[in-house]
Amino acid sequence: PETKLPKVGTTIFTVMSQLAMEHGAVNLGQGFPDFEVPPRLVEALARAMREGRNQYAPMTGVPALREAIAGKTERCYGWRPDADTEITVTSGATEAIFDAVHAVVRPGDEVVVLDPCYDCYEPAIELAGGRAVHVPLDPLTFAPDWERVERAITPSTRMLMINSPHNPSGAMLTPEDMAELTRLVQSAGLYLLSDEVYEHIVFDGRRHESVLRYPELRERAFVVSSFGKTYHCTGWKVGYCIAPPLLSAEFRKVHQYNVFCTFAPAQWAFAEMIAHEPEHYERLGAFYQAKRDRFQRQLAQTRLRPLPVPGGYFQLVDYSAVSDLDDLAFCRWLTAEKGVAAIPLSPFYAIAPEGQRLARLCFAKNESTLDAAIERLKAL
Amino acid sequence: PETKLPKVGTTIFTVMSQLAMEHGAVNLGQGFPDFEVPPRLVEALARAMREGRNQYAPMTGVPALREAIAGKTERCYGWRPDADTEITVTSGATEAIFDAVHAVVRPGDEVVVLDPCYDCYEPAIELAGGRAVHVPLDPLTFAPDWERVERAITPSTRMLMINSPHNPSGAMLTPEDMAELTRLVQSAGLYLLSDEVYEHIVFDGRRHESVLRYPELRERAFVVSSFGKTYHCTGWKVGYCIAPPLLSAEFRKVHQYNVFCTFAPAQWAFAEMIAHEPEHYERLGAFYQAKRDRFQRQLAQTRLRPLPVPGGYFQLVDYSAVSDLDDLAFCRWLTAEKGVAAIPLSPFYAIAPEGQRLARLCFAKNESTLDAAIERLKAL
Ligand SMILES: CSCCC(=O)C(=O)O
Ligand SMILES: CSCCC(=O)C(=O)O
Repeated sequence: PETKLPKVGTTIFTVMSQLAMEHGAVNLGQGFPDFEVPPRLVEALARAMREGRNQYAPMTGVPALREAIAGKTERCYGWRPDADTEITVTSGATEAIFDAVHAVVRPGDEVVVLDPCYDCYEPAIELAGGRAVHVPLDPLTFAPDWERVERAITPSTRMLMINSPHNPSGAMLTPEDMAELTRLVQSAGLYLLSDEVYEHIVFDGRRHESVLRYPELRERAFVVSSFGKTYHCTGWKVGYCIAPPLLSAEFRKVHQYNVFCTFAPAQWAFAEMIAHEPEHYERLGAFYQAKRDRFQRQLAQTRLRPLPVPGGYFQLVDYSAVSDLDDLAFCRWLTAEKGVAAIPLSPFYAIAPEGQRLARLCFAKNESTLDAAIERLKAL
Repeated sequence: PETKLPKVGTTIFTVMSQLAMEHGAVNLGQGFPDFEVPPRLVEALARAMREGRNQYAPMTGVPALREAIAGKTERCYGWRPDADTEITVTSGATEAIFDAVHAVVRPGDEVVVLDPCYDCYEPAIELAGGRAVHVPLDPLTFAPDWERVERAITPSTRMLMINSPHNPSGAMLTPEDMAELTRLVQSAGLYLLSDEVYEHIVFDGRRHESVLRYPELRERAFVVSSFGKTYHCTGWKVGYCIAPPLLSAEFRKVHQYNVFCTFAPAQWAFAEMIAHEPEHYERLGAFYQAKRDRFQRQLAQTRLRPLPVPGGYFQLVDYSAVSDLDDLAFCRWLTAEKGVAAIPLSPFYAIAPEGQRLARLCFAKNESTLDAAIERLKAL
């Protein structure tokens, strides 16, 4: 058949994970932890199943989980969304992003995305009949250039998508960014989709500038997060969307007929975990900061140059001292020949910056995994 | 905001379940079992978590599960799909239907659906920019009138959707239907979407006419099924789509950027269950037939008239001896005043047949639940 998504191939994360497997490479490519889910969470899920929580969850999510998310949001960001009308549990953040896009983007609408960006944004926009308008972030700091963003806005612009802490760079939006953003979405009357899945992985005392802290922003925003990164269970696929009642109502129309509801026992388990062990996500920044610091000290012994990592669990490295290959070729070579899988940056761009020599390494790994990778990287 | 889905409200299943809760009614509305998941499956899932199967599953599904599905398909329908290129695991059958529609339906395309039909079909078609063309099934037997279907086909028709065993009626397509269907989709060059989630719940020695049995049909079809009905776990949301390689490739483009992958531990658990306990689904027909027969005998003591149920876990009843209310009003009254929740048929129709007095009761319930309902229904 002719294709509705001519640009879509297999995602780079799958491609590199497969290559890693074929070559027995240490996989620092696709972003997932290689350590365990908190045992309390596993046992809570097992108990939920044994207690019979195995039939359809409510379409919007198990009430106890929506209340737990409301409470956690208030503790973290000083504002409590309404569990009934403003929170919807989804089958991962990816589904939430897809639903939010389909809730508001109409054929012919434009959506501004900031490159590099996660690879599910544009296909969702295209399937909805819209067009992604790509504005590059600064190639060194990955900060938005708000004047450039403003120039990209046209009467057809419907939504702006942001992501902080940022994948792949780890960059974080600042209070000044949020002020610029507010001015911009207000004056242009845009919806905002904020991907905050790394919200609890922030370093060096920085504050995560959630859109939920800003009344003028959250009144027009879909804020998407997930438990995969926070609880080391990327394969559980439980996320959520917080949006004002009218936007949540439109969001739920899509969600209801896309997946209807999300794996029920995990919802009960997360509800219990959030309510009874808030320390878990409060400690997550320190947990990953120790990993980042150790990994950066080790990288200093290689010819890869680590960039600063304000948040998230990815380390960008400049490999120009090692190789002149473009990033796709370099990452394939590194995986196949040198035994360390990494993710190139160019798949995150519509047009990658000329001559950029950056690769992304995931440090959500046990020390032994990172040590094994470093041994190989030292030999470069 | 203006809405992209003006016709969509809260699904009737949620509405009636909420009403049932408010009034303490016995809930025979929304279709879900009130008995337990096989303990082996629960323990297999718990073990998968403890063994660390908690990170992203492959986008297409865990290989062991796709192999198990291929094997089960061969055992059941005499044809083995290729696990790598023809099977994709999804977050329930609803996601699979949504993805299949989005894979092929383009703005302006028409999709023929047979009324009454499950309520997620039309919103998926509309979100894809298509238009659902409704052709009624026979109001008594719920058999398709293939001449009428043929007359509804235009040059814009892209796909035809079928569902057997049928929700809400339990009707099943016959070998003669499959011959008509083949002629029709071949001559009009249509894609076919076959919703077979009740495939293993068939009665009285009938054979489920899966599209997968028919080479000329399956070469142009998305065949969707799920484990929710087969393993009594509607809240686990694991389904799958079987389609030829080129169609699967398009399907996966949507799936990849819609949810990416499905809850991983359950995939391992189903793989184990299917491989080691095929008796489970082989016995499912007899298990539900006993429930159907007992329930129909009990209904004979009420003024509701049960219709024949060839498959599935729903019993249609004609209530015209009890009430003149339309079906929505009757089901609300039955739930709120008489303490038994049922599902009206009109939400399954674009235009419900004038004067139809049918309600749907789910008999996927423990005997004690059905007994409690019957006590109340006897008083009508
Ligand atoms: C869905 S696979 C990609 C995982 C991820 O978030 C990443 O590696 O960026
Ligand atoms: C997704 S809730 C509806 C469940 C169901 O399949 C039905 O009741 O028909």
